[in-house]
Amino acid sequence: MTTQLPGPASGTRPDDARRHNRAALVRRLHVDGPCTRATLAGELGLNRSTIKAVVDGLAAAGIVTEAIPTRRSGAGRPSLLVVPDPQAAVVLTVDVRVDQVAMAMVGIGGQILGRHSWNLHRSTRLPGEVITHVAESAQLLRDELAVTEQAVGVSVPGVVRRDDGLVREAPNLGWRDVELGTRLAAVLGRPVQVANDAEAGALAEHLRGAGRDVADMVYLAGDVGVGGGVISAGAPLRGTGGYVGELGHMIVRPDGRDCFCGASGCWETEVGEPALGRALGLPEDTPRGVLVAELRALAADPDRAERQLAGFAGWMGIGLITVVNMLAPGLVVLGDLFGALPPTVLDRVRADVERRSLVSRAVGGTPVVVSPLGRDGALIGAAELAFEPVLEAL
Amino acid sequence: MTTQLPGPASGTRPDDARRHNRAALVRRLHVDGPCTRATLAGELGLNRSTIKAVVDGLAAAGIVTEAIPTRRSGAGRPSLLVVPDPQAAVVLTVDVRVDQVAMAMVGIGGQILGRHSWNLHRSTRLPGEVITHVAESAQLLRDELAVTEQAVGVSVPGVVRRDDGLVREAPNLGWRDVELGTRLAAVLGRPVQVANDAEAGALAEHLRGAGRDVADMVYLAGDVGVGGGVISAGAPLRGTGGYVGELGHMIVRPDGRDCFCGASGCWETEVGEPALGRALGLPEDTPRGVLVAELRALAADPDRAERQLAGFAGWMGIGLITVVNMLAPGLVVLGDLFGALPPTVLDRVRADVERRSLVSRAVGGTPVVVSPLGRDGALIGAAELAFEPVLEAL
Repeated sequence: MTTQLPGPASGTRPDDARRHNRAALVRRLHVDGPCTRATLAGELGLNRSTIKAVVDGLAAAGIVTEAIPTRRSGAGRPSLLVVPDPQAAVVLTVDVRVDQVAMAMVGIGGQILGRHSWNLHRSTRLPGEVITHVAESAQLLRDELAVTEQAVGVSVPGVVRRDDGLVREAPNLGWRDVELGTRLAAVLGRPVQVANDAEAGALAEHLRGAGRDVADMVYLAGDVGVGGGVISAGAPLRGTGGYVGELGHMIVRPDGRDCFCGASGCWETEVGEPALGRALGLPEDTPRGVLVAELRALAADPDRAERQLAGFAGWMGIGLITVVNMLAPGLVVLGDLFGALPPTVLDRVRADVERRSLVSRAVGGTPVVVSPLGRDGALIGAAELAFEPVLEAL
Repeated sequence: MTTQLPGPASGTRPDDARRHNRAALVRRLHVDGPCTRATLAGELGLNRSTIKAVVDGLAAAGIVTEAIPTRRSGAGRPSLLVVPDPQAAVVLTVDVRVDQVAMAMVGIGGQILGRHSWNLHRSTRLPGEVITHVAESAQLLRDELAVTEQAVGVSVPGVVRRDDGLVREAPNLGWRDVELGTRLAAVLGRPVQVANDAEAGALAEHLRGAGRDVADMVYLAGDVGVGGGVISAGAPLRGTGGYVGELGHMIVRPDGRDCFCGASGCWETEVGEPALGRALGLPEDTPRGVLVAELRALAADPDRAERQLAGFAGWMGIGLITVVNMLAPGLVVLGDLFGALPPTVLDRVRADVERRSLVSRAVGGTPVVVSPLGRDGALIGAAELAFEPVLEAL
């Protein structure tokens, strides 16, 4: 029940207060970008002298500089902007996908300083292979960019125990009970956060994508598997042991196909990549590129798109209605293949949700939008997970 | 994004610290009962002198007394117990059900000081009728118990906007867009919190029922409608505008019966009271008492129970698998009619979840238990919602 008690009693000593204000200010600059001291005072509810003390401290430590805004607003002397130095804190982010591993060094403010990626196939998909390649690529990035990461965030398409980064099941990678967090931390010598890719994607949309300023949102991504991440009251929704939900495994069609997970008729079996292939009259193992090209072609022919994807859209709608009714989000963001669906098909899905979800009606309509981050979502989100403790300690 | 910032910077002034510690201590006593100063110091992470100051202050205000424990543990002088006075803060709680309204005055510690209830039927179910009857009954309870409530909590079987207590849709009451919170506050002259009955039930299980010490849990209640409440990281899960999810309206059978909500094949249409009646070979409008009696009879004949409720158990399992996969709870608590199902049927449902939910497998098995609070759940939970601000201000 301790979780029900108001915040930590320790948060009352003056030095804690300073640390607290400093962390809040750095986080504000990291998430929302440079702004004036006056803006910081207003947003953080602190007086100008406190802001001055914190900003001066950060400037002395080389974490921020104060600069004259390039575009002057109104007349008179422009007030200085507090600008974080991207290199003052750097994290390494790794997005392990079914077909590829993408990595990047990310600085304060979310600036991507450099990237590296390689393709995965059966033989290079073994955990040990991936860990070694990540370590080698990390060193290349450090040398090339002359930076060193302070922490590491990893996104994985599977069931992950956040507490220690154990990957329980990542069926599409063929992984089971892989101690990814512990093993990567040992190899890289840095703290490592491992998260489910949809949790990372949801965090990215919330901090830097379509969900900025939306406290309660759901991110749904269609890939080989279907994942979903939930942001509730501004923070990622996690369950017991730090596991997050597997929205792709709600049962929408009990008499449907068997799912690898042991159930049948999971949403994933009706709207995942193989299902999309079937709907398009293509083999279930059609390469992603071909699927996306076919979807683009369909987008140019709305009538054909609606005809051909009517069934697929129906299952999309059923899944979205269940998600909206269960979680009452203020926004639903569609990523990956879902974001590539023809506009007419997405409109059909939106109409279903509007018409048939009592919660959507109650909240005055639940918007369903396409992710502006595209495939970078999980990569950006994993970086933010790594940044959390780093910014606290700056 | 403010929700992402660490707690309020204002929590740093000394008087705030005192208030904070006092509220934390009162809440600890309210939720977990009397204990020694040493226990309080350990649990709240405060030193003994701080605890002494706070306890002395509360004693002087007549909110707590220090008493010699009745059962002495070990040898030597027993340490005094800090005991809250139930009447030091009293709330009124109201549980509006489809067939009945139950009310109670509740004191600190969750002690029910007195109750009152009456049955509802079509003519007395009008919002104005209910509000008037609640006001009259509240006065009777005040006079009878010689107490005055400081706040009011109300549980309603419907879609509720927590922010202002607007009841959007309560189909089984025939209510739509009823400003229950505002109207009751005006009549009673007290702050009123209105919540969905399943949210209240979940809070009750978390604070005083099967979910004590479980930070992430789901409460599912079978009534005329089916409701679910979620506790995440120790707090009720709410969506946009303070709405909570409607777990009874996940779509489990797209080709199933039409639901009042506008969708078809909602979980509610397969496991709600009418569906249970059908499964038992009784009319859909069979009175609840008859259903419960029939379930008791079935419990005595396990083979017949399994035969007759096999289909019903199947739909229970499908709904539970979806809930467990989506939310990864550490515990599922079944209330109302779900709690009255024969043990063999519940075992069948548990086996389904264990075998077919990948999240249950990942977390090492998700326990499914019957609520120990029975029909009082929502009443107790609504009281706790009313207590939250009251305890903060003591």
